[in-house]
Amino acid sequence: MISGATRILVIVGDPIAKVRSPETFGRRFAAKGIDAAIIPVEVSAADLRVVVDGLKRWRNLAGIVVTMPHKEAMLGFADEVFETGRLVGAVNALRPTGDGGWQADMFDGIGFVGGMTAQGLSAQGRRVALLGAGGAGSAIAVGLARAGAAAVCVHDLDARKAERLVSALQRAFPQLQARVAPPDLARDDLLVNATPLGMQETDPLPWDLAGLRPGAIVGDVTTKPDTPPFIAAAERLGAPVVRGRDMHEGQIRALGEFFGFDLAA
Amino acid sequence: MISGATRILVIVGDPIAKVRSPETFGRRFAAKGIDAAIIPVEVSAADLRVVVDGLKRWRNLAGIVVTMPHKEAMLGFADEVFETGRLVGAVNALRPTGDGGWQADMFDGIGFVGGMTAQGLSAQGRRVALLGAGGAGSAIAVGLARAGAAAVCVHDLDARKAERLVSALQRAFPQLQARVAPPDLARDDLLVNATPLGMQETDPLPWDLAGLRPGAIVGDVTTKPDTPPFIAAAERLGAPVVRGRDMHEGQIRALGEFFGFDLAA
Repeated sequence: MISGATRILVIVGDPIAKVRSPETFGRRFAAKGIDAAIIPVEVSAADLRVVVDGLKRWRNLAGIVVTMPHKEAMLGFADEVFETGRLVGAVNALRPTGDGGWQADMFDGIGFVGGMTAQGLSAQGRRVALLGAGGAGSAIAVGLARAGAAAVCVHDLDARKAERLVSALQRAFPQLQARVAPPDLARDDLLVNATPLGMQETDPLPWDLAGLRPGAIVGDVTTKPDTPPFIAAAERLGAPVVRGRDMHEGQIRALGEFFGFDLAA
Repeated sequence: MISGATRILVIVGDPIAKVRSPETFGRRFAAKGIDAAIIPVEVSAADLRVVVDGLKRWRNLAGIVVTMPHKEAMLGFADEVFETGRLVGAVNALRPTGDGGWQADMFDGIGFVGGMTAQGLSAQGRRVALLGAGGAGSAIAVGLARAGAAAVCVHDLDARKAERLVSALQRAFPQLQARVAPPDLARDDLLVNATPLGMQETDPLPWDLAGLRPGAIVGDVTTKPDTPPFIAAAERLGAPVVRGRDMHEGQIRALGEFFGFDLAA
């Protein structure tokens, strides 16, 4: 039960109704006996700065979690951005330093790799096809590069976004083969949908999976529905899958540590 | 359990840790099966405008509850203030109109009178001594005047505040004897502490109750502790009391209606 003394986290996004974080964090807080809550805040891109300026003045705010479409813009609202956030060019968590300053970092990539590891799947040596070079996609690319992927091919309707991510990957991971390219189902063995396609029932598939290699893994960042069309198509082909839910669970522990809570399951 | 779809109310104040509203509303929401929550926001007077500007841009905010010391300042942040709020010069609730506008009103007075009524106590014909002419005190004076009090004597360390309230009472309630004066225990039969004295254990009593008339009622707006020193002193004298808790319960139904929830017990 929330009281006047409860420590508050917020999650800002647009739309916000389908985010899982309030329930996931809520269950962990309850299980651990931690008096804290995480609150959904729906805000448009145009209003983000005014809303964040206000949030920064709450004296009882433990931190801000960030979801689509604000992860890139939010980087500009932090006083200090840690290395993964800088490399990705986006952040999904901000915390107060206690003296008026705010620090930020990006945890999506850690979450996706953690979601693979939990199922006994390894990124080592994989050829990755990434759909979507936004905040979540970029973070996943960095996370997979750190976890030993051999190649990352980035596809985005906005070619400049894809090029920017590939340049950052090349600078940070000289051993990695990084390039702008669409999926090549004859060769890729890990496809990840990091676009918003799949959140709406009427969305088209982000990529046709016909011809997927045996053993290739299919991932999707969408958390609602739990099984978006891309994951459903992969399962019909017998492919191992990494859901948004798996990625989300992997983030909780890391985010909890960042905000100063022990949320290990 | 809060989800991404939960409708959010906030309560802003300073300090905020002792407010009861999150728990009171939380129990009612749970009992009624309403998917809503009320969140404590601690903000200084200096930061209030920036915080409220941010809150107004949340697309999923159902409303703002206001507690000390922001009830007077908040009046200036509403586009439309209803009659009680205008008369009191303070508001404790704001709601969005849906087109970017915000409406405000003051419910403290309704709450105090409701707390008396629930115990079979009437304000009719009473001579009231009010300690504290801030937002809560002013609202209680208006509420008691509406409920038929014969006289209201207002005492505040800030004499101008007391004078302003008395002038407003005289204009709005020509039949009422309203004046700036300290309590007169030989004559008063309803004493109300609407100062912050009693929230801290080390606070002195807001007024010495020695000589209290038999049957005189003693009220206090403090909700934590449940029995502040002023109420404890009154009970030792055998006086009927109206606690902050009683006043608070009386507000819930009215606030719920204002925000569009059915919170009747």
